[in-house]
Amino acid sequence: MTDMKQFTPHHFKWRMEGDVAVVSLDRPDRKNPLTFESYAELRDMFRALPECDDVKAVVFASNGGNFCSGGDVHDIIGPLIDRDMKGLLAFTRLTGDLVKSMVACGKPVIAAVEGICVGAGAIIAMASDIRLASPDAKTAFLFTRVGLAGCDMGACAILPRIIGQGRAAELLYTGRSMSADEGEKWGFYNRLIDAETLEDEAISMAQRIAQGPNFAHMMTKTMLAQEWNMGIEQAIEAEAQAQAICMQTADFKRAYEAFVAREKPVFKGG
Amino acid sequence: MTDMKQFTPHHFKWRMEGDVAVVSLDRPDRKNPLTFESYAELRDMFRALPECDDVKAVVFASNGGNFCSGGDVHDIIGPLIDRDMKGLLAFTRLTGDLVKSMVACGKPVIAAVEGICVGAGAIIAMASDIRLASPDAKTAFLFTRVGLAGCDMGACAILPRIIGQGRAAELLYTGRSMSADEGEKWGFYNRLIDAETLEDEAISMAQRIAQGPNFAHMMTKTMLAQEWNMGIEQAIEAEAQAQAICMQTADFKRAYEAFVAREKPVFKGG
Amino acid sequence: MTDMKQFTPHHFKWRMEGDVAVVSLDRPDRKNPLTFESYAELRDMFRALPECDDVKAVVFASNGGNFCSGGDVHDIIGPLIDRDMKGLLAFTRLTGDLVKSMVACGKPVIAAVEGICVGAGAIIAMASDIRLASPDAKTAFLFTRVGLAGCDMGACAILPRIIGQGRAAELLYTGRSMSADEGEKWGFYNRLIDAETLEDEAISMAQRIAQGPNFAHMMTKTMLAQEWNMGIEQAIEAEAQAQAICMQTADFKRAYEAFVAREKPVFKGG
Repeated sequence: MTDMKQFTPHHFKWRMEGDVAVVSLDRPDRKNPLTFESYAELRDMFRALPECDDVKAVVFASNGGNFCSGGDVHDIIGPLIDRDMKGLLAFTRLTGDLVKSMVACGKPVIAAVEGICVGAGAIIAMASDIRLASPDAKTAFLFTRVGLAGCDMGACAILPRIIGQGRAAELLYTGRSMSADEGEKWGFYNRLIDAETLEDEAISMAQRIAQGPNFAHMMTKTMLAQEWNMGIEQAIEAEAQAQAICMQTADFKRAYEAFVAREKPVFKGG
Repeated sequence: MTDMKQFTPHHFKWRMEGDVAVVSLDRPDRKNPLTFESYAELRDMFRALPECDDVKAVVFASNGGNFCSGGDVHDIIGPLIDRDMKGLLAFTRLTGDLVKSMVACGKPVIAAVEGICVGAGAIIAMASDIRLASPDAKTAFLFTRVGLAGCDMGACAILPRIIGQGRAAELLYTGRSMSADEGEKWGFYNRLIDAETLEDEAISMAQRIAQGPNFAHMMTKTMLAQEWNMGIEQAIEAEAQAQAICMQTADFKRAYEAFVAREKPVFKGG
Repeated sequence: MTDMKQFTPHHFKWRMEGDVAVVSLDRPDRKNPLTFESYAELRDMFRALPECDDVKAVVFASNGGNFCSGGDVHDIIGPLIDRDMKGLLAFTRLTGDLVKSMVACGKPVIAAVEGICVGAGAIIAMASDIRLASPDAKTAFLFTRVGLAGCDMGACAILPRIIGQGRAAELLYTGRSMSADEGEKWGFYNRLIDAETLEDEAISMAQRIAQGPNFAHMMTKTMLAQEWNMGIEQAIEAEAQAQAICMQTADFKRAYEAFVAREKPVFKGG
């Protein structure tokens, strides 16, 4: 799976646009629900990314006008009803492992959200680094509507850091839909873009980032997670170490030499 | 105190609206200051809530057009001047215990803020899960104006998570009033509602939440606090466990069965 | 260096406006880059502040229409290219020590940002307590553009707490400029003020804060950093202790007596 340019997943779509992998779920007739199989295969894909130098960024795209409708009621919720605690924990850990694998994949992930983005779909958007959306995006952390808690796949930890504790609490207790405008105003969505050009814009943005210093991007991603619950002093020391490592890359030297030569630097990712 | 439907507090108002407790301070002529007695009785009430199944959500309401004017200068600040360190710490811990008891009460708390909301009053709003306000609400963390620090009852930890570190720092150093518009824009207030309908809307919102899966709501509230300073990976594992517990409730099964029957689920809180 | 009213730095400008120190970099022709020397001298100055009672607040001002252009390419980046890991870590720790010294200086720091505010300049603004800017301010965490990671001087820890995780991630991965309007909307800038009056307004604000209870301000600043990664319960107990200490200051008594006498309190900082 290390040559991911040739990767052919069974349970989601995958294509390369230059150095950028474009991923989307593939059941557009049902607004792209997740299944046990797609959870596992997505997790495995993100777990393989750190060792895959050919993929420099990921766009998690929509399909057929929707992003993802979350865990399928028939394929997932039904079977869960009959599971014992061991089986339930195996499932909730599987879903959590998808988020962990996204956080640890070492590449910037940009979500491009159209239409329905609910349940585990909203979590996938939340676990991305940057989120773009079309004005019709409807994002709901609706676990409460199926009798569950808002603490799903890291939502009680991550969502408050993106939109603030008060707004997160309302969304998690009520399960209500957040409009695209609210999402942009609150910092969940970085920008709203018309649906026709959303995926292209997301890919362009990912390609621009991919042309940057990719080893350094990996370090940025690592430290954003690593410093999550460090003290300020510890975080500053951790960054002193991390940035000193980046200063030994050839990309740092390339940038300096390009500056001196009044040229645009060409980064090579190491 | 476990049958709180019959609860008759001595130092604040209390009534039930369905499953929702509506609490307010009761000295409207003085904009509802707190006293040693109301601090302690509010703390005891919130401490009793986890074992009180009849109360499913709380609205902390205003009274006479104001929310709360904070610790009373004559009843509280005067006596504190003469206390030794043991006595001072007893007081600051009493006030902190009110926030701890709100955070640990297991029920969503919605603040409905009109008019003056300052000092410990602003803290009570801050320690609620969701905050609604009328357009005339004036919210000030004014401890600096009485010669004290902004680090009161958890404000230096909680306020930055709601409105961001920079805005919180300004409010805490200057003690200035935050307008209702600022509060809404910054995510302190979830919504602004005209004073005439504010309390009714807060009760309606609380009742809608109370009709949801209350065991799961308790878990959402627990985890929002529990994950406060966990790492991302630890938070995700903690949620895998917490959500697996919720999947063993009958409410989860009720939601599934209602979905299959194309009905609206009726949750029973367990 | 304890009598800082007479302080004459070699590598930046310094003057007192009442109790407020006004600091700025001093190479306006080059938009005020940092050098090894100014990094070290700024760090030493902030390290001296806790024991300097005459300085009650700091304004970090602009000079010649710009705030700071970051580490100088010729004076800093060039020499770094040739350093070994020991030398690189010495540099990244020097820069981190500047942020640590700002956080630990015990006095509120207000940044007054005009024009260019990039790289380590953006970090100095970020590490201030309150940030004011003119409408032309251009703020960029542009480390990625020189081949480095966004984890510089604490940015991956501090920036997300100010503007949210999603907006911070975009700025750190892309290195793009944040406009003053975005900065204000996102809570990076507390207020936008025309360039002509920006410095005066920042000094006025700092003087108003300096007239407050300075021992208590020191405690506010201490606790904002100290509680960064505490749990909620621990933070509340820490504040109970910190505020009890402040209640033993004469400023607390002065505020009470002034209130009783219907006068404006005059704080003396202890």
